[in-house]
Amino acid sequence: MLKVPDHQVAGHRGDGGKLGPLVDDSGRFYKPLQSDHRGDTELAFYESFYSNTEIPGHIRKFFPAFHGTKTIEASDGSGPQPHLVLEDLVAGRTNPSVMDIKTGSRTWYPEASEEYIQKCLEKDRNSTSVSLGFRISGLRVHQNSEAGFWQPEKKVVYSFNADGVRSALRKFVSSNLSLGPNVDPDCLYASKVYCHRGGILAQLLQLKEWFEVQTNYHFYSCSLIILYDRESALDGRAHPKVKLVDFAHVMDGHGVIDHNFLGGLCSVIKFIRDIVDEDNECAKCEVNLGLKENGFYKSSTEPELDHEAC
Amino acid sequence: MLKVPDHQVAGHRGDGGKLGPLVDDSGRFYKPLQSDHRGDTELAFYESFYSNTEIPGHIRKFFPAFHGTKTIEASDGSGPQPHLVLEDLVAGRTNPSVMDIKTGSRTWYPEASEEYIQKCLEKDRNSTSVSLGFRISGLRVHQNSEAGFWQPEKKVVYSFNADGVRSALRKFVSSNLSLGPNVDPDCLYASKVYCHRGGILAQLLQLKEWFEVQTNYHFYSCSLIILYDRESALDGRAHPKVKLVDFAHVMDGHGVIDHNFLGGLCSVIKFIRDIVDEDNECAKCEVNLGLKENGFYKSSTEPELDHEAC
Repeated sequence: MLKVPDHQVAGHRGDGGKLGPLVDDSGRFYKPLQSDHRGDTELAFYESFYSNTEIPGHIRKFFPAFHGTKTIEASDGSGPQPHLVLEDLVAGRTNPSVMDIKTGSRTWYPEASEEYIQKCLEKDRNSTSVSLGFRISGLRVHQNSEAGFWQPEKKVVYSFNADGVRSALRKFVSSNLSLGPNVDPDCLYASKVYCHRGGILAQLLQLKEWFEVQTNYHFYSCSLIILYDRESALDGRAHPKVKLVDFAHVMDGHGVIDHNFLGGLCSVIKFIRDIVDEDNECAKCEVNLGLKENGFYKSSTEPELDHEAC
Repeated sequence: MLKVPDHQVAGHRGDGGKLGPLVDDSGRFYKPLQSDHRGDTELAFYESFYSNTEIPGHIRKFFPAFHGTKTIEASDGSGPQPHLVLEDLVAGRTNPSVMDIKTGSRTWYPEASEEYIQKCLEKDRNSTSVSLGFRISGLRVHQNSEAGFWQPEKKVVYSFNADGVRSALRKFVSSNLSLGPNVDPDCLYASKVYCHRGGILAQLLQLKEWFEVQTNYHFYSCSLIILYDRESALDGRAHPKVKLVDFAHVMDGHGVIDHNFLGGLCSVIKFIRDIVDEDNECAKCEVNLGLKENGFYKSSTEPELDHEAC
């Protein structure tokens, strides 16, 4: 049984008779293959990435599993259409909290049309992409069964400045959102989500190490997804996860690192690091201390991170 | 006795009746204080940087020493003008080889005028800044006493593509430039200059670690200078050095890392790393091996690097 995904925070949505992704009960996510070059580019990326034997296993896990393409009934009623068959990132989670972070200060690439470049450049300048190296494209935070989800409107998310981004990253791991906008976010889950062993920060540092050396792909307009399960977070089972999605504008790296994505990724890391550094629970966490040395942050080369409580 | 510096590779030159920097015999470099906001910005940066107690000592050494301002006769004969009094980076070196690398894919900053932004953007797109995250602004390589210096013209340097940059970074450490453009650069000095203990690569990695955490300054249009002494390189006394110069467009970081400079710096590191990885002498070097772990590169947090042979 295919349905419109509940927990999508950015991108085209497939409800209201529009074309968008669908999910099934077995953990698969069906993304309509865009008919222009974007569809070709995304499919070519998945095929290249999963046939590239140089990609380390601990890096593959940051990408959705890929199960080829399949022609299914499109969500807009336009009949059978080809779809990418991918991993549903939130399958098996009841009320995941999700944030979509479009990473890189520049979403355009040199080979694009002048019109496309100008359109991207304007968005990059009018959002935090240029100033922070990334912009939040959407977020959805589970508060509790009564208050439901906090999911600010697109226009609110798009208008975030640096302080708005800082605040959103704090609220993403806080338990007191339902008390209203004048209450300081308590960051109650920071130690379980951000600096946890196998947490968001450790995963981002692994990804950063790969971006320092990989020269195959340049990820323009690509998103970092960070997600976790809030309901079981205090029991140490937040299952925080980092994934990359949206590869419709991935270009050949031609032997050069993706300095644009890497710079933005380092900026995301620093924003999260600042929350961790201010947090009393994180300060006690051995994993966090292990990442820090002489005031600088060591990268983790641990190939497999697990979800044990710290 | 003030004179026009011999080893300048980029920027305004003070010969031919033009306004440019001067040097004296005591190791000081006099840079005319630009009369517009650029002069104010550069002076404010030096004053802020050297009064900032949070800057670690091993980071300060990457910046020219600053001795205030002094009014001296300008090189263009226009009479007494205020100058910044800085460290002459090549003082005491006979025939230094020098490269100027303007670092960051974006030389413009959000607060600049629309005219300035468009001018910078065009230069960034027409050079390797956008594609590689940096561009070589000038270089001067000592060949031998007979052949003198290899110093390609500005228009040649400005037209480098990725392969031109790769080649220039190889030639910078090669002994056989005088055999002509059809001979492969031998990279004879790579192990003494790039991967040497205290060499360029180790210094760049130190700088990178700082850029991952520092949020005080954003270094637009700033240059990385790399230099060494070729004549004594084979004796292990190349004295390779990395310095940052040109702070006329440094902006307040407002608590955000300089993701633009950092991305470009990581790209420079990868280009040099590729040369080191291909080099037989570097492969034997313990320092190089020490930087590498599980196929990734560890950062060095060693506060003081020395110039011992590896």
